[in-house]
Amino acid sequence: MNQINSQINFENTKYLKYANYKNLNDFNYNQLEILAKEIRDFITEVVYHNGGHYGSNLGIVELSISLLRNFNPELDKIVFDTSHQSYVYKILTDRKERFHTLRTFKGISGFSKIEESKFDHYGAGHAGTGLSAALGYAKARDILKQDYNVVSVIGDAALTCGVTFEAINNIAQYPSKLIIVLNDNEFSIAPNVGAFSIYLKKLRNNPFLIKVEKKLDEIINILLVNSLIKNFLIDTKSWIEEGFTKIISPSIVGVIFEEFGIQYIGPVDGHNIRLLDEVFSFAKKLEKPVIIHVLTEKGKGSKEAQEHQEKLHGVAKGKLKISNFIYFSTDEGLKVEKSTNSEDKKIKTYTEVFGEAIVELAKEDEKIVAITAAMPSGTGLINFSKSFPDRFFDVGIAEEHAVIFASTLALKGLKPVVCIYSTFLQRAFDMLIHDVALQNIPVLFVLDRGGIVGEDGPTHHGVFDLSYLRMIPNFQIFVPSNELELRNIIYTVLQKLDKPTAIRYPRDNVEGIYPLDKFSTIDLYKWVLNYETKEHKKDSKKVAILATGRLNRFIPKLIKLLEENDIYCKWYNCISIKPLDSNVLNDLIDYDLVLTLEDNVLAGGFGSAVLEYYNDNFYDKKMNVLRIGWGDYFVEHGSIKELYDFYGINEVEIFNKVIQKLKIDTVKVGVNNNESIQSNI
Amino acid sequence: MNQINSQINFENTKYLKYANYKNLNDFNYNQLEILAKEIRDFITEVVYHNGGHYGSNLGIVELSISLLRNFNPELDKIVFDTSHQSYVYKILTDRKERFHTLRTFKGISGFSKIEESKFDHYGAGHAGTGLSAALGYAKARDILKQDYNVVSVIGDAALTCGVTFEAINNIAQYPSKLIIVLNDNEFSIAPNVGAFSIYLKKLRNNPFLIKVEKKLDEIINILLVNSLIKNFLIDTKSWIEEGFTKIISPSIVGVIFEEFGIQYIGPVDGHNIRLLDEVFSFAKKLEKPVIIHVLTEKGKGSKEAQEHQEKLHGVAKGKLKISNFIYFSTDEGLKVEKSTNSEDKKIKTYTEVFGEAIVELAKEDEKIVAITAAMPSGTGLINFSKSFPDRFFDVGIAEEHAVIFASTLALKGLKPVVCIYSTFLQRAFDMLIHDVALQNIPVLFVLDRGGIVGEDGPTHHGVFDLSYLRMIPNFQIFVPSNELELRNIIYTVLQKLDKPTAIRYPRDNVEGIYPLDKFSTIDLYKWVLNYETKEHKKDSKKVAILATGRLNRFIPKLIKLLEENDIYCKWYNCISIKPLDSNVLNDLIDYDLVLTLEDNVLAGGFGSAVLEYYNDNFYDKKMNVLRIGWGDYFVEHGSIKELYDFYGINEVEIFNKVIQKLKIDTVKVGVNNNESIQSNI
Repeated sequence: MNQINSQINFENTKYLKYANYKNLNDFNYNQLEILAKEIRDFITEVVYHNGGHYGSNLGIVELSISLLRNFNPELDKIVFDTSHQSYVYKILTDRKERFHTLRTFKGISGFSKIEESKFDHYGAGHAGTGLSAALGYAKARDILKQDYNVVSVIGDAALTCGVTFEAINNIAQYPSKLIIVLNDNEFSIAPNVGAFSIYLKKLRNNPFLIKVEKKLDEIINILLVNSLIKNFLIDTKSWIEEGFTKIISPSIVGVIFEEFGIQYIGPVDGHNIRLLDEVFSFAKKLEKPVIIHVLTEKGKGSKEAQEHQEKLHGVAKGKLKISNFIYFSTDEGLKVEKSTNSEDKKIKTYTEVFGEAIVELAKEDEKIVAITAAMPSGTGLINFSKSFPDRFFDVGIAEEHAVIFASTLALKGLKPVVCIYSTFLQRAFDMLIHDVALQNIPVLFVLDRGGIVGEDGPTHHGVFDLSYLRMIPNFQIFVPSNELELRNIIYTVLQKLDKPTAIRYPRDNVEGIYPLDKFSTIDLYKWVLNYETKEHKKDSKKVAILATGRLNRFIPKLIKLLEENDIYCKWYNCISIKPLDSNVLNDLIDYDLVLTLEDNVLAGGFGSAVLEYYNDNFYDKKMNVLRIGWGDYFVEHGSIKELYDFYGINEVEIFNKVIQKLKIDTVKVGVNNNESIQSNI
Repeated sequence: MNQINSQINFENTKYLKYANYKNLNDFNYNQLEILAKEIRDFITEVVYHNGGHYGSNLGIVELSISLLRNFNPELDKIVFDTSHQSYVYKILTDRKERFHTLRTFKGISGFSKIEESKFDHYGAGHAGTGLSAALGYAKARDILKQDYNVVSVIGDAALTCGVTFEAINNIAQYPSKLIIVLNDNEFSIAPNVGAFSIYLKKLRNNPFLIKVEKKLDEIINILLVNSLIKNFLIDTKSWIEEGFTKIISPSIVGVIFEEFGIQYIGPVDGHNIRLLDEVFSFAKKLEKPVIIHVLTEKGKGSKEAQEHQEKLHGVAKGKLKISNFIYFSTDEGLKVEKSTNSEDKKIKTYTEVFGEAIVELAKEDEKIVAITAAMPSGTGLINFSKSFPDRFFDVGIAEEHAVIFASTLALKGLKPVVCIYSTFLQRAFDMLIHDVALQNIPVLFVLDRGGIVGEDGPTHHGVFDLSYLRMIPNFQIFVPSNELELRNIIYTVLQKLDKPTAIRYPRDNVEGIYPLDKFSTIDLYKWVLNYETKEHKKDSKKVAILATGRLNRFIPKLIKLLEENDIYCKWYNCISIKPLDSNVLNDLIDYDLVLTLEDNVLAGGFGSAVLEYYNDNFYDKKMNVLRIGWGDYFVEHGSIKELYDFYGINEVEIFNKVIQKLKIDTVKVGVNNNESIQSNI
């Protein structure tokens, strides 16, 4: 972060060096066009260095500029749904100078965040919350008799979320002055799905509309030249009753929104600032809910981003092609990063290994069907969707529906594999209980992004799943610690899927140590002994290590440190979180310490389960479980390593905690010297 | 249950004694009319004895009969959304003889339940799951190349649930043969809210439609007399292209559904079996999704039920007026029940105490706003809604929206009180984390129906909340054990609402022991010592009792039992679940047993939190927490007392567990004799 910090400058820009929300109205439209280009270049360079959401931010440049010309971000409540598209807004609301710290530890968040700035009125990361939040702001204004505008910027994908619909339903019930900007780029994360997508397509392709669209510039020119909107409208008598909207849209096309009591305006060219200005200036005057349907191009201004929309939705560091750097004098920050780049080593991710495995298995078992909630690529199901289109369902950002839908597929004998990120499955918590578990229906849930995810931060960390799944009766939960286990757990579970089952793994590279040969059936419920200290003194303290998932990575070095201090170690890899392996736990009752490691909150998690087991089965046994995991706080954004280090989850910190627990006063020399540690395991 | 069992008989009925799904087509329409009346009377008597859902089941008699005349419940998948309206279906699908055990322990469930009958194709209790489940059945049929009909019966309230919309969106995307029956009674639990409600009203009141509706009988008579639907349609050339639907509805009215790709038929008189038969017989022939909009009257056939719709939605035992009993020779079962009837004692419920308190507080503090999700009466907010209509929001069955909406109300300085049943708040689990807690927004959640609810069973028990709330950072959780505490917790919290807060209490009467005078500020975080053994032997075992909520009721007798065995007791009432009162916990470290009691699952619950605290802070302390609560199973339906007894949560069972844990071999005489126990506390 600091490396880049010193090297950023806006000297070579014409307008971006000056621009912010306060002076945007001082620019003319030609100048704004140049400013838009400079913003795009800036975002491109920052995303090149830091990774981030790309196409959506390139697509919203003009729209963000126009919003800031027409609304006051200090007073008006501009709420970005999902909010990964808020980069331009951030840059223009006093965060330009810090924006190169995007997604870095302690730097600018990749999402809206109340804590970060007074201009961020609502944080988000999960889709579909924008309308509900906006309605709250609008009703609060009405109740408190205040005066400000509320604008909710939602993407077309938000229209696949149930909660968006709940909000629309309520906006009709509690009509308030409220502006909804539907930023329709026809392509949210994956090509959009469902009825609303079809409906929006109809709006776009309406013949009358197309005609009008072609005339838009003409019309708007007339409006501007005369500055007499009213006169123009009077000439078109049939239009006046419905107001300005009629110029742009015949009533038939906005019918769903209008049936919902929300005035429809659109579609509007989202890259024409002049037109957007007119529309916003009109919409502000309406004392009721209005939806402005804005058409934008994802990746606008970058041929690359437009051609590879899904690929360049979220971009990893160093992935963009840039010929010359305007804002960064060097790309050193990136070079440091590149050495650990996974592609160089050809190491796959857990997602990829899963994606390959499920295709292999589905070839042999035609009962397997796969379901994703708008993440066909993110969950590794792209190849499955191509190989088995009839057995693949992308339901949109509709996790609740996905889970129930899977349950009846299963009741008819199919084997549904529901692939949803850990954090997004929180949306379907009730359905996991009320639909799947209560009826004991065999559905396999594959939770990608289990544990911390790094730069996407707290809205995306998947650190609650072990707790929220463990409390649900009938569920079994598995956590692989490497690619071979991942493959064999899925293989074994799908051979006789007979109860609700969850598998969770991280957003990370796999371990790269196993050749991936044929699937084999494994004992799902057995914790495997990975290592045991061979020689030790008679009075050595005995530590049992119960590690889950990728936290197994810390154990070789940790054991080295412990053995240097004459501590006897036994290391189990625990793939089954529920049920626990009671045989192993029973064997460990005389140990001085049982260390549990989980990439999950400690409250109610894996270590808590171990504790409950010991307490309930061994009255008067000594309490000596040291639980490693996330405490009672939200983990911020940053690289995985930075976060582990910051919160004390690494070899040395864990070693220190063990030593402290065991009340060992004198620690052998060299132990805290990280460099001297070499794993011999 | 057995009391009633022997007394049920169908001798005095004309048709109900014979009727079941297999022979319904043998009856003529006049006979069916009599059968419908007999079914209504039967339901009335059973609900009189057992309590249950009343108005909705009276309203769906003809519709259920027609469904069973046109579909085969052994093969076709009839899915009832929410499913409290499935009584008629149950009676006619081989459960007539057992139906009088409705809602009793081990008896017929008040909801659809796969375990109960092969005719129940999908269980439910929470609204809005019916369409997703039906779509799963339809797609499974297509994938497996099978042949059956799928019918989803949804209420109009389901259209306020986000998940219903997610399903509609997907039905359009994955069109399949699928029949949706929209059972529109204009009044689900509370008067319906939101855009869809307005829209349905439009459908009902469309002038063309009304005209058509008046002509419906005529038209249908023509159709039936001629048996020549086609001829009639040919005469009306413009209608034929769209099929049968045009007879009943002009295309404009069903536009939203049709824009969603679902053919709309309706509205249809839901009490006209002949008409329903025609519509279903037509709909079965369509190879695409179709929605049949059926108008029914809630409480049909009972003047009382029609006049008091919300009151007689869910009815308690003995509340209906019945002049003579046809099916039950006596009402003895009820008489037994009446002696403990709360109204006789004039004891209020927790819900009522809350409802009164929030009105009192809102009079003094105009920042207080209240939000409910379709439960204004169930959550006790009816008076609030009348006193402060501008500060009251019933958002429909839209828990997700409710939580987000509250969060921005709070960000503007209001004090939102979100009243949602414990089990329904599961729907908004993600919003509690991602919107409220992550942004540390001060919202007060009032969870009614915390703990088991009794006869409504596993879909309604609120036994997960302490676990699912406890894992969320920034949340504080309180559980009052009596009405005074409930009042003062709310008062104290609302005085300076500064973080996400939850209060949960049961569906139950309050303790009735306190005069409810003025509010006072209390120390929310302090566990209060209720009792301490005065005299004891030097070597007495020491038991600390940490009781929460209504489980405090068991403690006086339990202590009596323990003291009889020379066990020293200390009893704390723990109103704060999070944070824990560490002062108290620290004081108890040398106790022989710490007993925790919670009306919640043990996994990750209150006892688990106590364990975690001891383990993390007192290395090598002995494990001696005895956790009382619900194990890793779903609690079935039955009376509260039956369920507590069945699962071993009562004085004697807890006493036995304590004795066993403490390894006391000889228990004093008389201890297991329940009658001898008299509380002196």
